[in-house]
Amino acid sequence: MADDDFGIRPGEIAVALPDRYDASLYFIGRIRTPWTSRDACPKNPRESDAVCTIEVDPRYAAALTGVDSCSHLLVLYWMDRSRRDLVIQVPRHYGEPRGTFALRSPARPNPIAASVATLVAVAGTRLSVVGLDCLDGTPLLDIKPYFASTDAYPQAVVGWHRARQG
Amino acid sequence: MADDDFGIRPGEIAVALPDRYDASLYFIGRIRTPWTSRDACPKNPRESDAVCTIEVDPRYAAALTGVDSCSHLLVLYWMDRSRRDLVIQVPRHYGEPRGTFALRSPARPNPIAASVATLVAVAGTRLSVVGLDCLDGTPLLDIKPYFASTDAYPQAVVGWHRARQG
Repeated sequence: MADDDFGIRPGEIAVALPDRYDASLYFIGRIRTPWTSRDACPKNPRESDAVCTIEVDPRYAAALTGVDSCSHLLVLYWMDRSRRDLVIQVPRHYGEPRGTFALRSPARPNPIAASVATLVAVAGTRLSVVGLDCLDGTPLLDIKPYFASTDAYPQAVVGWHRARQG
Repeated sequence: MADDDFGIRPGEIAVALPDRYDASLYFIGRIRTPWTSRDACPKNPRESDAVCTIEVDPRYAAALTGVDSCSHLLVLYWMDRSRRDLVIQVPRHYGEPRGTFALRSPARPNPIAASVATLVAVAGTRLSVVGLDCLDGTPLLDIKPYFASTDAYPQAVVGWHRARQG
């Protein structure tokens, strides 16, 4: 399996994607991380406490007004190095087939990642954060304030995952 | 102000967007809700307990395998009825200017909404959920399992918002 993961594993299922796209995105910045290969990336955002840097395009500098008052941010980014046509996947670290929408895998029809990051510091258009797990240079799509009142569900359960853990 | 909100309010600031897009999206389904005008939508996802229906394109049916074991889902959808060039906004219910990235407003360079929904039932490619606040017919972008271990930060604070309340 190449590092860019465009292969398909036994048990995985791909579908034909639509002939055309429906909407388009701007990359609004880049995420700088210590990880330059997929194998080096943490398996999930809480596995590392490395400080990463979100570099926002200066065009949007004013849009950061007030962000420094947030303890946590919901960061959306574009995982552009995965295939988009898999509906059933066999993640390496699970080894069993799962539906794409039951996984956080980067391989999905719209490879948008959503991670909660802890904000450490803001310096102009550079945000220092902890809690990202992506490759260095990953394109940034959005930054949102994380509201505990609507975004935090500590009691949430992912049944298939809990069953694995016993 | 028209219901589609393409106007600009006093105190709001727009910037020139890039000349071209960087990536493209597929709409993978539609969200059915009771709300057919923006004014009728709840102000946030916990303001209503209405059951909404996520209709997934049958092309992706297999990708739902295992989703029924999730108590909560992170749902991404496309808020295609907002302008994308605002960096400073004056939300109607706050009345003060804020940076776009400090707000959950639909007006943003990439109008991707992220909401946590409680899963009520799965019937084929139709998911019944509680916790969405969008217009009927909103395009669906992604469904992800919500992991309390990485997605729930009950202690998170949005400083500018708390100051308003307190």
